[in-house]
Amino acid sequence: MAPFRVMKVLRRANELSAQGLDVVHMEVGEPDFPTPAPIIRAGARALSAGQLKYTDARGLGTLREAIARYYQTDYGLDIDERRIFVTVGGSGALLLTTALLMDPGDNLLMSDPGYPCNRHFMTAFASSSQLVPTTAENRFHLTPQQVTENWNPRTRGVLLASPANPTGNVMADSAMHQLMKVVSAHDGYLVSDEIYHGLVYEPRGGGVHSGDLKYSALHADPNAFVVNSFSKYFGMTGWRLGWLIAPLDAADDLEKLAQNLFICPPTLSQHAAVAAFSAPAREIMERQREEFRRRRDYLVPALRDIGFDIHDMPDGAFYVYAGIPEGYKDSEPFTEWLLEEHHVAVTPGTDFGRHLANRKVRFSYAQPLPRLSMAVDRLSQAMRGQ
Amino acid sequence: MAPFRVMKVLRRANELSAQGLDVVHMEVGEPDFPTPAPIIRAGARALSAGQLKYTDARGLGTLREAIARYYQTDYGLDIDERRIFVTVGGSGALLLTTALLMDPGDNLLMSDPGYPCNRHFMTAFASSSQLVPTTAENRFHLTPQQVTENWNPRTRGVLLASPANPTGNVMADSAMHQLMKVVSAHDGYLVSDEIYHGLVYEPRGGGVHSGDLKYSALHADPNAFVVNSFSKYFGMTGWRLGWLIAPLDAADDLEKLAQNLFICPPTLSQHAAVAAFSAPAREIMERQREEFRRRRDYLVPALRDIGFDIHDMPDGAFYVYAGIPEGYKDSEPFTEWLLEEHHVAVTPGTDFGRHLANRKVRFSYAQPLPRLSMAVDRLSQAMRGQ
Repeated sequence: MAPFRVMKVLRRANELSAQGLDVVHMEVGEPDFPTPAPIIRAGARALSAGQLKYTDARGLGTLREAIARYYQTDYGLDIDERRIFVTVGGSGALLLTTALLMDPGDNLLMSDPGYPCNRHFMTAFASSSQLVPTTAENRFHLTPQQVTENWNPRTRGVLLASPANPTGNVMADSAMHQLMKVVSAHDGYLVSDEIYHGLVYEPRGGGVHSGDLKYSALHADPNAFVVNSFSKYFGMTGWRLGWLIAPLDAADDLEKLAQNLFICPPTLSQHAAVAAFSAPAREIMERQREEFRRRRDYLVPALRDIGFDIHDMPDGAFYVYAGIPEGYKDSEPFTEWLLEEHHVAVTPGTDFGRHLANRKVRFSYAQPLPRLSMAVDRLSQAMRGQ
Repeated sequence: MAPFRVMKVLRRANELSAQGLDVVHMEVGEPDFPTPAPIIRAGARALSAGQLKYTDARGLGTLREAIARYYQTDYGLDIDERRIFVTVGGSGALLLTTALLMDPGDNLLMSDPGYPCNRHFMTAFASSSQLVPTTAENRFHLTPQQVTENWNPRTRGVLLASPANPTGNVMADSAMHQLMKVVSAHDGYLVSDEIYHGLVYEPRGGGVHSGDLKYSALHADPNAFVVNSFSKYFGMTGWRLGWLIAPLDAADDLEKLAQNLFICPPTLSQHAAVAAFSAPAREIMERQREEFRRRRDYLVPALRDIGFDIHDMPDGAFYVYAGIPEGYKDSEPFTEWLLEEHHVAVTPGTDFGRHLANRKVRFSYAQPLPRLSMAVDRLSQAMRGQ
């Protein structure tokens, strides 16, 4: 299993901070906002009431009902509650899906670049990811043609992420429909990582937040496995809670897997998460989304001015995937240099794959605007100084 | 993957309760006591302070230090903190160990009867458990001779549990030393499930709680993989927190696995768990242990009087593994009959393996004494009435 380079950057950045240096953290994959107060209050109520015992392995009934209502109001989708599994983070949802679908030697097609944990899950289960190099022209998403060309006898399906990490790009709904058709023609599975849903700033390509409703892979393929999380849009990282939507005929097997591998998701987090769907909590989240949009709108042109290559305005998440200007070192030494000499922590592209990775870095804008502005000043000085 | 029969019993028992019937729950694997108040207070403090972000994948430094101190005070063992991984329940610790050690086709030797999740973990990772039938004479533990006889080229090691589920039996430290020698002679791994440590009522065989110190597999084999949990003795089931002690040379790989598979354990639970080692919390736990002992001392003779076959007094946990009296149905129809006709929920032996399983049931005494007494009355009436 390859190292998780962002963790090395994070550890070193924290060491420098401990030495009294003021490091700007643009490496982190965690919103800087606190968990919305209504969620914390619901957690406090559950704690006082001693609601701390095991729950159903699939999660609390009330939470699964709240998730089903969320799909109705936000997606216009009717999801049978038996298809909903509350999990230990989005990671738990991906773990259940992997354990269910993948036999040793099987593979899933994934985009390169992509989120490293997704391919490492495959390794842990002795299966593999087929990383398919994607292009800026396709907004770093897999195309139906690439899926066809790369499908082999041990391919079980496609894992896609929209908005994607590290690019922030949303896949257009028409593109997802076409992709689904190819997957379906191969009798494969569509696994959709939707953990950045809710954090979208553009209605690009009729995708998420086009019109009044969000767009899920479930619109393209009612049998898709959809992984979601309370960590990003809902601001509940350390609570370790996510969910999986699965086809009804997989529900019994998934329930057995969840019972055996996890017993149940954290109980207090589940009680708190019910409040994540309340109007006051959603209002806070929507204000935070606006703040993320402002940061993106500031950061992307500022990075371009310094010379970073950003092909398109990212649609969502809180990342900018940028090409290192010509004449500078490759991504690992480059990020080391930025951190050690200029105290700006960013993630090297090599965390996200092999394709073009040496010439890419990921900036996270999960930091307040004044901090981003300070980072831009430092980067600008760094590039001028060289 | 075989069904988890206790879950079926639990669901049906809850249905009957919802119909207004007063079912006695002797099927559950969860202490009936609430989480000790000092732990809840520490959780409330962390919640107010907003300590809810991701932590190090290995767990909070403060908690890992507290666990290291616990091994010093309670076991007389010095454990390097780099060997300690805080995990999502004992399940998370077993998942990391399985992902690390087992390749497809590998197997681990385990006792039959044994805790079903342990063998289902192997299935999820395309490896397998070699269930070895054990005898009442050996207190249902594997013997060194059995390990030798059942070792095959794909055997990676032995998983043992002490106190065991479903029997509650502790393995004598001399027996564990002998077992370790055999495992070591085969260059294998010892994986020790110690999640019921702390819940022991007998100093049998020089085992746990002999003298002033507890006895861990780490005494027999410093390179053992030890799985522990905050769920049972510490009373933190729904908090989903456990830990793994691993050999130092496995630490880097385990850290990568933990980062990729879990990100981190639940943050609030970690802050709360630091208080689990405080003197006031430990005092509460020790009082609860005495209460469990009283229940065991009441229940075992009472069940024997009715005709259940209990070979030895169980040493720990909160289970009694009992033979169904002759002339009665096999375990699944027997437990169905007890539940439907007499409103006592117990777990059929078939959850725990194949060997003798049809003639065994597991009683849990994680219920107050008056409830246990009510169950004994009902069982007594049931057996007389037939």
